[in-house]
Amino acid sequence: MPMPLHQDRLFPADQETRKIARALYSSVRHLPIISPHGHTQAAWFALNHPFPNPAQLFVSPDHYVYRMLYSQGVSLDDLEIGAVELKNPRKVWRIFATHYHLFRGTPTRLWLDYAFQELFGLNERLSAGNADDYYDIISEKLNQPEYLPRALYERFRLEVLATTDSPLDTLEYHQAIRDSGWNARILPTFRPDPVVDPEYAGFAESIAQLGQATQEDTSGWRGYLQALRIARQRFKSMGCTATDHGHPTAQTANLPESEAAQLFARVLSGNATSDEQENFRAQMLTEMARMSLDDGLVMQIHPGSVRNHNKKIYQRYGRDVGADIPRATNYVDALRPLLNQFGNEPSLTIILFTLDESTYSRELAPLAGHYPALRLGPSWWFHDSPEGMMRFREHATETAGFYNTVGFNDDTRAFLSIPARHDVARRVDCAFLAKLVVEHRLDEDEAFDLAQELTTRLVKNAYRL
Amino acid sequence: MPMPLHQDRLFPADQETRKIARALYSSVRHLPIISPHGHTQAAWFALNHPFPNPAQLFVSPDHYVYRMLYSQGVSLDDLEIGAVELKNPRKVWRIFATHYHLFRGTPTRLWLDYAFQELFGLNERLSAGNADDYYDIISEKLNQPEYLPRALYERFRLEVLATTDSPLDTLEYHQAIRDSGWNARILPTFRPDPVVDPEYAGFAESIAQLGQATQEDTSGWRGYLQALRIARQRFKSMGCTATDHGHPTAQTANLPESEAAQLFARVLSGNATSDEQENFRAQMLTEMARMSLDDGLVMQIHPGSVRNHNKKIYQRYGRDVGADIPRATNYVDALRPLLNQFGNEPSLTIILFTLDESTYSRELAPLAGHYPALRLGPSWWFHDSPEGMMRFREHATETAGFYNTVGFNDDTRAFLSIPARHDVARRVDCAFLAKLVVEHRLDEDEAFDLAQELTTRLVKNAYRL
Amino acid sequence: MPMPLHQDRLFPADQETRKIARALYSSVRHLPIISPHGHTQAAWFALNHPFPNPAQLFVSPDHYVYRMLYSQGVSLDDLEIGAVELKNPRKVWRIFATHYHLFRGTPTRLWLDYAFQELFGLNERLSAGNADDYYDIISEKLNQPEYLPRALYERFRLEVLATTDSPLDTLEYHQAIRDSGWNARILPTFRPDPVVDPEYAGFAESIAQLGQATQEDTSGWRGYLQALRIARQRFKSMGCTATDHGHPTAQTANLPESEAAQLFARVLSGNATSDEQENFRAQMLTEMARMSLDDGLVMQIHPGSVRNHNKKIYQRYGRDVGADIPRATNYVDALRPLLNQFGNEPSLTIILFTLDESTYSRELAPLAGHYPALRLGPSWWFHDSPEGMMRFREHATETAGFYNTVGFNDDTRAFLSIPARHDVARRVDCAFLAKLVVEHRLDEDEAFDLAQELTTRLVKNAYRL
Repeated sequence: MPMPLHQDRLFPADQETRKIARALYSSVRHLPIISPHGHTQAAWFALNHPFPNPAQLFVSPDHYVYRMLYSQGVSLDDLEIGAVELKNPRKVWRIFATHYHLFRGTPTRLWLDYAFQELFGLNERLSAGNADDYYDIISEKLNQPEYLPRALYERFRLEVLATTDSPLDTLEYHQAIRDSGWNARILPTFRPDPVVDPEYAGFAESIAQLGQATQEDTSGWRGYLQALRIARQRFKSMGCTATDHGHPTAQTANLPESEAAQLFARVLSGNATSDEQENFRAQMLTEMARMSLDDGLVMQIHPGSVRNHNKKIYQRYGRDVGADIPRATNYVDALRPLLNQFGNEPSLTIILFTLDESTYSRELAPLAGHYPALRLGPSWWFHDSPEGMMRFREHATETAGFYNTVGFNDDTRAFLSIPARHDVARRVDCAFLAKLVVEHRLDEDEAFDLAQELTTRLVKNAYRL
Repeated sequence: MPMPLHQDRLFPADQETRKIARALYSSVRHLPIISPHGHTQAAWFALNHPFPNPAQLFVSPDHYVYRMLYSQGVSLDDLEIGAVELKNPRKVWRIFATHYHLFRGTPTRLWLDYAFQELFGLNERLSAGNADDYYDIISEKLNQPEYLPRALYERFRLEVLATTDSPLDTLEYHQAIRDSGWNARILPTFRPDPVVDPEYAGFAESIAQLGQATQEDTSGWRGYLQALRIARQRFKSMGCTATDHGHPTAQTANLPESEAAQLFARVLSGNATSDEQENFRAQMLTEMARMSLDDGLVMQIHPGSVRNHNKKIYQRYGRDVGADIPRATNYVDALRPLLNQFGNEPSLTIILFTLDESTYSRELAPLAGHYPALRLGPSWWFHDSPEGMMRFREHATETAGFYNTVGFNDDTRAFLSIPARHDVARRVDCAFLAKLVVEHRLDEDEAFDLAQELTTRLVKNAYRL
Repeated sequence: MPMPLHQDRLFPADQETRKIARALYSSVRHLPIISPHGHTQAAWFALNHPFPNPAQLFVSPDHYVYRMLYSQGVSLDDLEIGAVELKNPRKVWRIFATHYHLFRGTPTRLWLDYAFQELFGLNERLSAGNADDYYDIISEKLNQPEYLPRALYERFRLEVLATTDSPLDTLEYHQAIRDSGWNARILPTFRPDPVVDPEYAGFAESIAQLGQATQEDTSGWRGYLQALRIARQRFKSMGCTATDHGHPTAQTANLPESEAAQLFARVLSGNATSDEQENFRAQMLTEMARMSLDDGLVMQIHPGSVRNHNKKIYQRYGRDVGADIPRATNYVDALRPLLNQFGNEPSLTIILFTLDESTYSRELAPLAGHYPALRLGPSWWFHDSPEGMMRFREHATETAGFYNTVGFNDDTRAFLSIPARHDVARRVDCAFLAKLVVEHRLDEDEAFDLAQELTTRLVKNAYRL
């Protein structure tokens, strides 16, 4: 069976529309990739070691892949999920290949086929029958110099690649990349969950550690805030331009200082109620906005995921094993305390994401189409897909316009999927623009200009890159 | 006016896409019908009497039909809703025919036109002008041998037809069908609402009756559970493979045994609060899952309908007269108690339905794309329509894939609409697959394979048929 | 750059579908405009003065325009928002023109281009470069007789234009129009928010004023209700056929008279809690329905907007400055008290609107497809756009049918956008109907009939015009 990578993939069937989409896509296809939000590892690029094997490259780090396998009865133990080094990567690969039909109709399939064909020259659909051939060919190539992390970064035409990092991270690998003289922009992102979310494991210890690292007394509210400021400054000095906040809800608060200080003491004591913990996270979003107004870091708010929904999986395999499930999310009331304080600041940029698509047209586009401080992140996580991206454009554009959006995020741990993901986003955006042109809702010259905006300009402006 | 049944109906306009949709549809058009969930009467097939008249066949049993008429001011009394035998069926038919334009753009119209043309050879659109001709032609045919229920079952190429039955039902008609030697699979479905929902009229009496039927002491928790087990076994012995649970919400609970026993005593006493009643239903979903793990019956959960929303209609005409209205439904928190207990069991199958389409991409696809025990039922009730089915595929497929879905349910009381409904589902699925093919998101050979999956294989596997 | 007004704009790309859409549109294109809900000023037509200048015509009254500019950092002060007369209208116009690219892909752009080209003969896209030309050409024309308000009313082929008015309004301008002998139907709409919403500024004073105007003692419940009845009668005598209710939620209540009277005393005292205020608004919807049953005024319920979300903007610029944001809205429980009382009355008409599109298929279409008193208003406010209108048809039609809908509302303060808005609505409806025809879901003759229904007949029937 031949691979399904057709040059016109993801373009609308109508010939006139397809022709315009193709032309638009040609104009942005080879632009550099700006990846302002993701979960690759700086260490890969600092050390530049070969990726170990196909299973550890395509299965182990990709919860999109193994959650689908698990949903159909494949054991996570058989996939060696959680192992640092796989004992039997070929066996894991064979299980994956045998179940490849499960990914029909999913974006995962688009990303994988792209990587197999474009990076490894494989031109037959993966199946049980060719699993070993695939394994051997990929394994061999991974050890060639042009498949080392730095070579791939260049081959992918990456211009910026942001990682996501704890305030406690030493950023030593980011430093090592800089010290190496390699000309690449791999930037940290300040993700303070471990020290702002009282439900995060080791919260109090992390705050103490933050105090040590910054030479501040983090047992009190002011010292704690000061330590966060210093940590942000350290990130900035390594090129960081953005923070990221993955709270369960979008709740914000704006307490008087004395109340905030008391609340901090409560959560630090470990005796806070669930409501107090939520209120503290809410307050910290407003504090982070205040600091952003000072230091210029762009804020990203990613709410609405119920983390570790599956208790048994969490107990056995830990965080981030694909058992996070979205929940309905309110923005209109939740963001009001923060917005009433800082929403009218044109020099602040807060990028909102959602897992609840019903909020695109109801809350997010109206909010971003009004408040100067707000921008809309692209369709995220489960919605980072052809249908999901198209829904985002269809639901948000008419109220928020294009200019309150910020281009594409790949948000991935799977480094090799980055070009495929950006390619899908560029194609879907061009398909959307082509539809507007062919229905005479947008002039053709504007569509070409917008294709550039959606691919590189908006993301650079929004993330201050 | 000629009838609108065009051979290419429901296929996309684009010629290339339409060509692929047509080819896919040809490959599944004549496959047998598997109907794993519906509300036809076993008695029809046991007795094999002629259907009485067009009004009682097309208007009286179909709340889609008379709710639309009622919404536009037609009196339910004039339609003789609630009557066992119609006094003036021709008058009812004329009212229906005169208002036939109200169904423009609705799936009801597609189903009716199909039955009129394909089963009765009528080739003019129904109207006030031809109402009597219609009535006479249909009436005459209904008395011919090839229009008797069993003949129609065979003509419809039904392979399985599931009914929906109370645990108190004797299943005598199912037994009679078996005893008759007629070679058809008409299977009961175990729907325990009368004995698990404390708000169901006659709840305590029904539980007492269940005790008598099973020779168990249902005044206590253990005897009650044992009686349910015995009743399920009786259904299984008549071919039943599934249970069905129509709760107002998706709430589940997982109480310690002593608490559950106390709660049972409370609800049985008739003194329970509304919250206790809800909690009992929640606990019973978990108990049903536990029993399913033992006896292999597939669970169907159909939540989110506010029953008998219209008090006057309920008081005058009783349950199920079209006055049920959907409500926003939470799955992510509600199902957690059950899923934490049984969600990781690959040998358990729980099929989730919804009336809240915003949950497709937000909650249901992520849940079914992770938990081995979960599958997604098709678009249901008001959403069992061309647009509704397409939205289901577009919103659920990218995260849950095709293999976490279970084919089509017709869910109908209107026996003559069954072929039409399955035909619509097959056409819409083929239209969706054709779009994926023409946009190069799926290979053509895979689309042909999936057409088979969506039509017969997934439903047989999921329902263990 | 030429203007984008193409004769086939908003029609689907597929040639066969486009051909049908074009034919349908030709049949309704020149029908008169019925505008049953909007916010133009009767004074314009009573006085018939020239509109002052381009900025006050296109920027100042249109919160769609200045909210987008504000969201991208333009100062509302620079736009002179809130000024009765602009000090520097040319400067405001230049700011607007310079930012015209922000409206790409929005309905605002469609409306503006239409007005520029069709009314002012401008055939170059607005930009910084031609801002002054635009300004000069429009200014000049505004002073010509054919651009006076009455001339435009006739040129727009308006048959009915409804305004929105407080019960305290003298309706003197409506009277003046009548007295002038000019043959136009400009009708008031009874919008009682100032005297039924306890949170409205000056609530108690307004009720006292209502008492004076009607010679009733509005300090008690019965006198208050009687005063409202008299005020409605006064509106009716000026041609009013409808009321409009813009509550934060859709909550209704049906209290016994003594409780309602006590609640009225509470809210009038100014000491009511937030819940009591909400409950009073809820009760008043039911009271309004009761009065409508008596006097025949059609009720419009527009819930779900959080008013004045942006505190600073509200404090500085007052109400209705574009800082209203939608919130998730429940109808199924909220409307039940009212519907249980009056929902089955075929002689009552209640038109429901929403800002929460997830309710179209989940709640609104099922409610309107059952209750004789209910109809669905068109897609509203942020959803009054090509994608929004199409979603409304796709989500509501299959369950509610076409006949439970009421045509189009332009709902605008921007008089010059009225023809453009109705043109967009007609085009989108024809595109939707054409899709149904080409997919053989509707016969072509029916589509032509429905095009008439959706354009003029349904709106006239529903609003009793």
